[in-house]
Amino acid sequence: MVLVRQELGDVLRDFRLQKGRTLRQVASKASVALGYLSEVERGQKEASSEILASVADALDTPISVIMREVGDRLAVLEGIDVIPDTVPADLSDSFAKDLVAR
Amino acid sequence: MVLVRQELGDVLRDFRLQKGRTLRQVASKASVALGYLSEVERGQKEASSEILASVADALDTPISVIMREVGDRLAVLEGIDVIPDTVPADLSDSFAKDLVAR
Repeated sequence: MVLVRQELGDVLRDFRLQKGRTLRQVASKASVALGYLSEVERGQKEASSEILASVADALDTPISVIMREVGDRLAVLEGIDVIPDTVPADLSDSFAKDLVAR
Repeated sequence: MVLVRQELGDVLRDFRLQKGRTLRQVASKASVALGYLSEVERGQKEASSEILASVADALDTPISVIMREVGDRLAVLEGIDVIPDTVPADLSDSFAKDLVAR
């Protein structure tokens, strides 16, 4: 079972590390207990929407950016990240054959 | 303050209605109480990751699809949905001038 809180925790930790902040700094700015934030980052606690908003704010990151990243990572886990960034080989082959046939 | 559970509730309800299912059908298939699912849909209760996974499954919708939709709606609310789907006018103007200058 794919759990949102595990991906959410990873995303929050990754954004925090990208910004070079410590757990202590973010917990303090977001007014949440350090141990609680640590558990959220490890996917062990569900963060309420209010706490999530505070933590996102403390990370100077819009909550939408966090949730989109969670969605993207869940899609990879679910194996449904199927938006192709190139034309699939079989499609471009059949297109090439159509062009030759004209 | 933009709250994730409100957007999540809206998304869950919208997907359910799109599929023509009743609260009772989804609650029963997901093994959650009808009143609880109703509160989640109205953004009044936080759904745990396990319940979210069950409800997504009952809706035959990957959890990543739900979370991406939540992220997209939050981005609109936050006014940061700035990925342009056309080339901005000033950019295409300056490009046109460059071409003429050659």
